[in-house]
Amino acid sequence: MNVNLAEVRRIVKRALEEDIGSGDVTSSLTIPAASVCRAQIIARDEGVIAGLQVAATVFAAAADTYAAKKGAKVHFVPKVEDGFRAHRGDVLAELTGSTAAILAGERTALNFLQRMSGIATKTARLVGLVKHTGAKIVDTRKTAPGLRILDKYAVRVGGGSNHRFGLYDAVLIKDNHIRVAGGIKKAVEAAKSGAPQGMNIEVEAASIEQVKQALEARADMILLDNMSPATLKKAVELCRGRALTEASGGVSERNIVKIAETGVHTISVGALTHSVKALDLSLEIVS
Amino acid sequence: MNVNLAEVRRIVKRALEEDIGSGDVTSSLTIPAASVCRAQIIARDEGVIAGLQVAATVFAAAADTYAAKKGAKVHFVPKVEDGFRAHRGDVLAELTGSTAAILAGERTALNFLQRMSGIATKTARLVGLVKHTGAKIVDTRKTAPGLRILDKYAVRVGGGSNHRFGLYDAVLIKDNHIRVAGGIKKAVEAAKSGAPQGMNIEVEAASIEQVKQALEARADMILLDNMSPATLKKAVELCRGRALTEASGGVSERNIVKIAETGVHTISVGALTHSVKALDLSLEIVS
Amino acid sequence: MNVNLAEVRRIVKRALEEDIGSGDVTSSLTIPAASVCRAQIIARDEGVIAGLQVAATVFAAAADTYAAKKGAKVHFVPKVEDGFRAHRGDVLAELTGSTAAILAGERTALNFLQRMSGIATKTARLVGLVKHTGAKIVDTRKTAPGLRILDKYAVRVGGGSNHRFGLYDAVLIKDNHIRVAGGIKKAVEAAKSGAPQGMNIEVEAASIEQVKQALEARADMILLDNMSPATLKKAVELCRGRALTEASGGVSERNIVKIAETGVHTISVGALTHSVKALDLSLEIVS
Amino acid sequence: MNVNLAEVRRIVKRALEEDIGSGDVTSSLTIPAASVCRAQIIARDEGVIAGLQVAATVFAAAADTYAAKKGAKVHFVPKVEDGFRAHRGDVLAELTGSTAAILAGERTALNFLQRMSGIATKTARLVGLVKHTGAKIVDTRKTAPGLRILDKYAVRVGGGSNHRFGLYDAVLIKDNHIRVAGGIKKAVEAAKSGAPQGMNIEVEAASIEQVKQALEARADMILLDNMSPATLKKAVELCRGRALTEASGGVSERNIVKIAETGVHTISVGALTHSVKALDLSLEIVS
Amino acid sequence: MNVNLAEVRRIVKRALEEDIGSGDVTSSLTIPAASVCRAQIIARDEGVIAGLQVAATVFAAAADTYAAKKGAKVHFVPKVEDGFRAHRGDVLAELTGSTAAILAGERTALNFLQRMSGIATKTARLVGLVKHTGAKIVDTRKTAPGLRILDKYAVRVGGGSNHRFGLYDAVLIKDNHIRVAGGIKKAVEAAKSGAPQGMNIEVEAASIEQVKQALEARADMILLDNMSPATLKKAVELCRGRALTEASGGVSERNIVKIAETGVHTISVGALTHSVKALDLSLEIVS
Amino acid sequence: MNVNLAEVRRIVKRALEEDIGSGDVTSSLTIPAASVCRAQIIARDEGVIAGLQVAATVFAAAADTYAAKKGAKVHFVPKVEDGFRAHRGDVLAELTGSTAAILAGERTALNFLQRMSGIATKTARLVGLVKHTGAKIVDTRKTAPGLRILDKYAVRVGGGSNHRFGLYDAVLIKDNHIRVAGGIKKAVEAAKSGAPQGMNIEVEAASIEQVKQALEARADMILLDNMSPATLKKAVELCRGRALTEASGGVSERNIVKIAETGVHTISVGALTHSVKALDLSLEIVS
Repeated sequence: MNVNLAEVRRIVKRALEEDIGSGDVTSSLTIPAASVCRAQIIARDEGVIAGLQVAATVFAAAADTYAAKKGAKVHFVPKVEDGFRAHRGDVLAELTGSTAAILAGERTALNFLQRMSGIATKTARLVGLVKHTGAKIVDTRKTAPGLRILDKYAVRVGGGSNHRFGLYDAVLIKDNHIRVAGGIKKAVEAAKSGAPQGMNIEVEAASIEQVKQALEARADMILLDNMSPATLKKAVELCRGRALTEASGGVSERNIVKIAETGVHTISVGALTHSVKALDLSLEIVS
Repeated sequence: MNVNLAEVRRIVKRALEEDIGSGDVTSSLTIPAASVCRAQIIARDEGVIAGLQVAATVFAAAADTYAAKKGAKVHFVPKVEDGFRAHRGDVLAELTGSTAAILAGERTALNFLQRMSGIATKTARLVGLVKHTGAKIVDTRKTAPGLRILDKYAVRVGGGSNHRFGLYDAVLIKDNHIRVAGGIKKAVEAAKSGAPQGMNIEVEAASIEQVKQALEARADMILLDNMSPATLKKAVELCRGRALTEASGGVSERNIVKIAETGVHTISVGALTHSVKALDLSLEIVS
Repeated sequence: MNVNLAEVRRIVKRALEEDIGSGDVTSSLTIPAASVCRAQIIARDEGVIAGLQVAATVFAAAADTYAAKKGAKVHFVPKVEDGFRAHRGDVLAELTGSTAAILAGERTALNFLQRMSGIATKTARLVGLVKHTGAKIVDTRKTAPGLRILDKYAVRVGGGSNHRFGLYDAVLIKDNHIRVAGGIKKAVEAAKSGAPQGMNIEVEAASIEQVKQALEARADMILLDNMSPATLKKAVELCRGRALTEASGGVSERNIVKIAETGVHTISVGALTHSVKALDLSLEIVS
Repeated sequence: MNVNLAEVRRIVKRALEEDIGSGDVTSSLTIPAASVCRAQIIARDEGVIAGLQVAATVFAAAADTYAAKKGAKVHFVPKVEDGFRAHRGDVLAELTGSTAAILAGERTALNFLQRMSGIATKTARLVGLVKHTGAKIVDTRKTAPGLRILDKYAVRVGGGSNHRFGLYDAVLIKDNHIRVAGGIKKAVEAAKSGAPQGMNIEVEAASIEQVKQALEARADMILLDNMSPATLKKAVELCRGRALTEASGGVSERNIVKIAETGVHTISVGALTHSVKALDLSLEIVS
Repeated sequence: MNVNLAEVRRIVKRALEEDIGSGDVTSSLTIPAASVCRAQIIARDEGVIAGLQVAATVFAAAADTYAAKKGAKVHFVPKVEDGFRAHRGDVLAELTGSTAAILAGERTALNFLQRMSGIATKTARLVGLVKHTGAKIVDTRKTAPGLRILDKYAVRVGGGSNHRFGLYDAVLIKDNHIRVAGGIKKAVEAAKSGAPQGMNIEVEAASIEQVKQALEARADMILLDNMSPATLKKAVELCRGRALTEASGGVSERNIVKIAETGVHTISVGALTHSVKALDLSLEIVS
Repeated sequence: MNVNLAEVRRIVKRALEEDIGSGDVTSSLTIPAASVCRAQIIARDEGVIAGLQVAATVFAAAADTYAAKKGAKVHFVPKVEDGFRAHRGDVLAELTGSTAAILAGERTALNFLQRMSGIATKTARLVGLVKHTGAKIVDTRKTAPGLRILDKYAVRVGGGSNHRFGLYDAVLIKDNHIRVAGGIKKAVEAAKSGAPQGMNIEVEAASIEQVKQALEARADMILLDNMSPATLKKAVELCRGRALTEASGGVSERNIVKIAETGVHTISVGALTHSVKALDLSLEIVS
């Protein structure tokens, strides 16, 4: 997945503990400890699948820690890869092993898969809409608290790119910084002189005037905030050859094509991760 | 908030660490360590607010751990209470204190508030639709991994009720358990004899036939899965005086009134928490 | 064991760290790193064995983390199962492998096994005394802090049943709640309207008068606190067909038969877990 | 308490989490969030009190994390000090503050206090029995897993002394080490040459012959294991002026005086901590 | 300090636990629990001080968790600021409060202060040597495991700058990457197309030929590895106006001036943090 | 390694997380996920090697958690053992496996190895200088915070011995304790009566007068602080047959022979661990 797998395991473990707590009372009462079964994860709607390895991690952890019987295992076999465009009825993965472990992990695994696939699906739709323009679709820091690496991974699966991962790995000077620092020029200069080696300086601009200031201050990239396509276009032209450009604010399926056609380099979309529609999936025991 | 505050603090701390990591490079370069400011959290759309105490916890943690200056504080004053129905422009909270800490906490606090308010808003809408029927709207375990206590709290703020918190605090015998246990009767009997003192036995039924079996097995509550309003009505009548009833599966704003009017006791809605539309909020430095 | 094995491993790990800290100085000085041996865990007194899987977990953890040599292993073979009624001299388990790891885990493993077997032994004795009555023996929350899941597991091994696991998975309205809530009626009503789906309402009653109030309030179960057998009998009759009954308070081997013969459904016994007599066991290197 | 308070807080926090989990459902439904009360912890039996500061820590943590209302506090005022010999009816502490927090902490606080006071009470009884002899009563590593620092503190409160805290802070060469090392002489020599600066070498001896070997090997202290008073006496005389002596194994109230009168320096008693009878205490809301 | 204070507290806590473990046996036996004192931290050698806030954190933690008496405090008053150039005998800080807490924290606080001041001192010396050239002195990832944020903070105190904090916040393509990727051109292109928004691409070059390739590939910065001053000079000239330059490898006090005078933008020095000479400091109780 | 391997794994994990954080951006962009390679760790200077097992642990953890591909492995084969005296060019270990994992662990593994080998090298040099005298070289608590068990292990690899591991496992009464306790006599008496079974009492003495007091108080060992060789010699003679002796303070390669020739039993050297010169090592991909 090209993510920190140790962090994925921690996230999975917390999710399982949250759901299982002191134990799965229903299964412990109704499922024999030695019971094994075969189950499938099935798509109930159309969309782009993301998170299969996370689901596999869930069942491994469930078997390791919550199964009724020591040494219980769940064998998880993905039938497709992340990025697969599924249709209703497609089998995404097959599981065989401890019934108790499969049922203990079911809801948690689906919660991850449905959210991540929902993000990938939406991203893929937006990426498709602007493919002809060369504009990159990027995410934001508007992710579900605690799930950022998974949310951002799902954006990549959907064909999007990642903006910074957090406050620590990029400089983005926003309106509030500018106000407190006493203007774009001062803020950019301060950032340029002290930024750790290897980081660009990006500045938010809400008007053509601010774009000009940012260019004068020699920002590496300019975030064009909530501009109309016309203004955006003007800004993009101003920046050509001098700074990279990013459009941001109120981007939706309705307006993204116009935005992309202004020539901006990237378009950031908060809704990719802050307003996710889960993809409908289910797990069924088949024998 | 009537939730485990220790757990809230842990969730908040992890969310901050995820975002801030080794430090907020932009603020550390552009904001003087001693800078203080006044800021507001403002509604940009209409909805039911939930999570103000979580936001307060974020800023307290940010001031305590990520502020540029030791001993920095952020004073967070909620201007409304959770459950408040906000309109565009309403000021939800005022913050005064360390600018660096306010900016360090901004995105994380909004991520919590926007998700929780989104959940409360949707719940309130559904609760309003069925108010005349006496049916309770309840949530499910389809929550964002790691955020269950907050998701479920937001449901309560919106006027909904909580189903079980996890696999540990209630018995719910679903189709998979029934299959493996060898029938509803066997499953219910096993559960009744071994359940920890104080737990009811709820059983999922997908047909009138299964409802009858569940009643014979003396289940305390029956989950009526994905039934048409007509079948649902019949099932509810069968159960009257013998078991509580819960409607579940594919519930939406379009069909919830009809479902509620069948007389079911509770209606569980996964989309309350698995497909959240974030409420639009922003934080602005005002001086 | 049908317990959360992840939690068992955490408990075991903390216990080992507490005992071994920066290392086992004696073994590291006197036992060659490559030394292997065969050892046995032997009963030194008569009782019901519980906790063999916990002991296995101890030695696995000891081998994995505290052994003198990387890759050292301890092979733990239980010779009996939990629930076995042991006599002096019975071999309960055989161990082969790293001498350093076996000695590092010895005391911790025995501390678990001796406590858990002590609990199972006492429970079995009480369960035996009331077998003719149908009354269930249940535990309480009076467990050793941090060891509740093991204490409660040991009760089940001894033939007892579990009361709630904590404050989170059942409603039990006690005298202090009643006082603050303003009476049994108010407290039960509040609990009935808000309890998470699937939980019964149990109420403590210290007199016949309170039993009547609890029945009127339609409590699901009534805890009959510290009543004489005569009063208990009266209370049980009042409740018949209307609520389940639990006898509690000052239960001992001397009075438990009389209590059980009143017809109460369950008898809760704090001493099962708060005043444990460790079963005498030892570990011996045999070659 | 002269113990690692950070560790005490961790132990307390785990115990509270184990009991409260996702929340105290009963109190949250029946106790108004703003309710405050006054309560007392009262002795229901005679004994030596230990653990008041642990109880205070429990209520502070409960108020901080599980109270219904943010900022809730519990004021805990001990009325006696650890080591106090209580009689039935004595008020040991008074609490005022959040009712929800007091009830959330009640059982956990009592679980600590009752166990620790039980240990102190038993220790005090044994110490009293041998006071005329000069023999010290010491504990062992047979403590409840995870509670060693509290168990050992309670022994000190009862007038006993502590043996080593774990495998890391003292050398004690037991029968198993001797066997593997190839005799007492070899084991002691190895230990003497490599022990970290500041540690004595103690050796277990089960016979007069072994005592002699240990003396020849110049052990600093000799553990006389399971010897009859007559043999013990002989061993003590042999060791006089050459090594300290410790009697161990099967020590009880019936034989401890005889053992002490042999002149041994210390007597170690596993039952002090492995077979604890909880002291009967209760918490009552008084207004 | 402009570092993640939460992380500093974790580092401090681990260091204290490592040193104090189950308790400070010497102080608990020889220092009355109520004893308070006044102490000073004093320079025993000349150098640049760094880490006073870390030392303050140590004593706060020691008072909070390891003091003999509950509620014990240590008041830490820095007499100079980080960056102060101390001479033998200078008082750097004064402490008043619990003697037990001061002694519990003494060694740990000095271990931090002496290392950090050693780093700051060495950095300041190198920075002074090249001041006339405009070259920045930067650190590397060759820090003591677990102490990176402190090591890098100390470099800043000494007047140096920070290279990347880890593998996560900058792209640095080294010889091993180039070999596996199949050449500088391919590696830089891959990095340019996929790097998270905001990161520059730096490439290591060991020869003029590689410098040319890196320039052609349009790297943003070039690390000039282990070049002689003459080659370095040539490389710097090639890069002028096209890429930033960093000299690295075998930098010492003997050759740094010549390196700086080649016109490189930055000089990275591993020895700043991998071979630290602790500054001699002591803590003395003065009354 | 005869150290707590669980603690080593924790230390390694923290170090890797510190360096890798949200991911290795360079490798993820330039190294194919499936790439495997062969690499060597090579000595670039002469010295005693220590920490090979720590390096192995680093690569295992890197493969397990940070590799680009699930199931990736790194096979680490040490070519020498800890304690080996390496010369420039010696191959210390060979690695084969996931290129991404090897590069993710490279810097962290070298940071451990270089520091530990630096400590072992310096220790071995001092041990060699005093070999003819019988004096033991011991370390102190002046270790890098968080790395004590590794620092002390490296001292043993170099032929030195360990002083106490922390404040918890030995009694060392220093000047500050003496002052507060009211003199050597009082301090030693208090320590003797209360020390946990198995610990010696060591006292610091800065003059012959204090040595006499310590002897009268019957200290087991006397730390002779910062004495000239002449005074030291006198002190050692006074102590002969009555107490062990330790020389401490300002020990260096220049004066250690003279100190050792006074006949002291042990010489403690803070610089072994507080002022480490990293041994120069490198990792190279060879195919």
